[in-house]
Amino acid sequence: MGEDTVYLDNSTSTRMDERVLEAMKPYFLENYAVATSEFAYSDGIKAKEALDEARKSLASSLGCEAEEFIFTSGGTESSNLAVKGAARANSDEGNHIVTTEVEDFPVLNSMEALEKDGFDVTYLEVDDEGFVDPTDLENSIKDDTILVSIQHANQEIGTLQNIEALSEVCEEEDVIFHTDATHTFGRVPFNLGDLPVNLATVSAHTIHGPKGIGGLYVEEGTQIEKQMDGGFQEKGLRAGVENIPGAVGFAKAADLITEEENEEIKDMRDELIDRLMSEVSDTTLNGPREDRIPQNANVTFHRVEGESITLHLDMRGFAVSTGSACFSRSLEASHVITGIGGDHERAHGSVRFTFGRFNESEDVDLIVEAISEVVNELRDISPLEGD
Amino acid sequence: MGEDTVYLDNSTSTRMDERVLEAMKPYFLENYAVATSEFAYSDGIKAKEALDEARKSLASSLGCEAEEFIFTSGGTESSNLAVKGAARANSDEGNHIVTTEVEDFPVLNSMEALEKDGFDVTYLEVDDEGFVDPTDLENSIKDDTILVSIQHANQEIGTLQNIEALSEVCEEEDVIFHTDATHTFGRVPFNLGDLPVNLATVSAHTIHGPKGIGGLYVEEGTQIEKQMDGGFQEKGLRAGVENIPGAVGFAKAADLITEEENEEIKDMRDELIDRLMSEVSDTTLNGPREDRIPQNANVTFHRVEGESITLHLDMRGFAVSTGSACFSRSLEASHVITGIGGDHERAHGSVRFTFGRFNESEDVDLIVEAISEVVNELRDISPLEGD
Repeated sequence: MGEDTVYLDNSTSTRMDERVLEAMKPYFLENYAVATSEFAYSDGIKAKEALDEARKSLASSLGCEAEEFIFTSGGTESSNLAVKGAARANSDEGNHIVTTEVEDFPVLNSMEALEKDGFDVTYLEVDDEGFVDPTDLENSIKDDTILVSIQHANQEIGTLQNIEALSEVCEEEDVIFHTDATHTFGRVPFNLGDLPVNLATVSAHTIHGPKGIGGLYVEEGTQIEKQMDGGFQEKGLRAGVENIPGAVGFAKAADLITEEENEEIKDMRDELIDRLMSEVSDTTLNGPREDRIPQNANVTFHRVEGESITLHLDMRGFAVSTGSACFSRSLEASHVITGIGGDHERAHGSVRFTFGRFNESEDVDLIVEAISEVVNELRDISPLEGD
Repeated sequence: MGEDTVYLDNSTSTRMDERVLEAMKPYFLENYAVATSEFAYSDGIKAKEALDEARKSLASSLGCEAEEFIFTSGGTESSNLAVKGAARANSDEGNHIVTTEVEDFPVLNSMEALEKDGFDVTYLEVDDEGFVDPTDLENSIKDDTILVSIQHANQEIGTLQNIEALSEVCEEEDVIFHTDATHTFGRVPFNLGDLPVNLATVSAHTIHGPKGIGGLYVEEGTQIEKQMDGGFQEKGLRAGVENIPGAVGFAKAADLITEEENEEIKDMRDELIDRLMSEVSDTTLNGPREDRIPQNANVTFHRVEGESITLHLDMRGFAVSTGSACFSRSLEASHVITGIGGDHERAHGSVRFTFGRFNESEDVDLIVEAISEVVNELRDISPLEGD
């Protein structure tokens, strides 16, 4: 596989950009020192400068101050730290938390852990395109609500929430607002300095950066309790020897994204949706046509299993996936598709396509042709066909 | 600095082995898929095979089964997961935990967090060379003791505990035994299959492997509660998209270590200790002469600040450190040196030397010469001199 595969699955596959590896290399092979302060030798200080530079660069991409950005081992850790950290640090002010039923697993399962610890969690419903109604959020907030966590965009169907309205509700109600921005960072312009968001999760591997590194925006003044104890790294909020090659690679990955690239990605994605809708019968677009992240399409091909499509596309050299990265090894129905009102048949027939830097417009022709053939073949042999 | 620097600080500096980077490269640039099961496309399955292979290789180095080894983001996370995870999973059987006063910060500060949650922690004292007396351990264990965490070797003074005796006490008392093996893995032969150790922390960056990756040995049947929620990775004990390049690099780093290398390292270290003791006046070796990890020397140069020595050696092109990696940015007295009965003067005058693969025997001549000069110069200008 490898070189000949057409990847339409950039959050779980494709590859790291070679320029990211080049940027990381000196911090693997030349200066591998632990970041230190002025009390130690000069390579430690240089290492700290590289870390600071990466932090500053990422903060600038996010529209926040460098002091408001901490490195973690990835989006999962960031969301755990945000959700559990904010809940535990503010538990003297209440024990009620609000989230949605379509969050990705790091948030969803952190909520479950908090429920076991005695917190009370409200799971907001979403509409049939995956949107949270800001009025529903407003109505859910009670006197003892301390935290709201609503994703910026959905990991499977790409629905882009009205983060302005949602975060403003929280600001008015004086409740901490966390958003999982894993699937928007780099691909959808937003400026944390202009939004009343208090905590935001971002990750590197979804933007052709390294695995094993992520970040959390912690707005100045937002109280969170560290979840990892040890040294005093990352403003005392995240212990552990800093992964400087990872941080440098993360910053480089964010730096390499251009507006043009995002427009090209959106054009390819739009063409894919249009053509699948018109050229393959009995399909449903999951998520909205417009307000979705530019890289994502998610389509149900009725009366066919998404897993079968994935396998047959794989044999033809296409990498797509069902569900989210966290999810793709389970055969359970997607909680996102059922969350937007889809039944199990719709959930099991859904396929997620994610475009990235390395896709070319001819990929759309190739995948549409392959999908048409695969879906028709599978429907021909399906026991459901003709029912 | 960089190329001309003589590193004697391998756990916090030196560099990653180029062969490790070569091993990681294909998993950055060619197959960057998320590890998946048979339900997905073939690159995901290949990625899972690479992860399994790395796990198997590391498990074989440790003398355990592949199923007993999980990947984490580093030693800090491993120790947090081991200590908090075991305490929380077994809290229905008791709330007493035993550790030592000279543990590294990930264990020590996890204990502090557990104390806030209502656990009762006993901190065993060590003798003047840093050893824990197995009889003290035995006497500390009560009916409600659920966990013991004692490091395999000390992060600063290199004292190698009698892990056989300590773990046997725990086995007899039916108490879970965790050991932080960060500074022994690769450098001191041990076989987890032969020892009644239940949990062991290891890390990659101390053996010329990548940062941001570590591991935890979880003996079959040992109950721990996951600390990071999300997907179902790592047997459900550690959520998060797997860092496959990191895992492959970790396995390669462990693979590259040879017995000969460890002997060479020990010879250099022994020569350094002998010469510093005989050629520099008023020095104290911290930790034992014999039962210490081969790469470590830790010496107090009385009436001189360790920080000053570090800075002056840095100007001459030598990288050494005071304290541990977690510690080196603080000016507090080392809790390890005070733990072995040293006063603040002894703690502040201590310097840690750590040998690695890239040291050569001439480094010993160079550092002894430089240290003699620096210490004499500093003593000449010290206000303490002549007191």
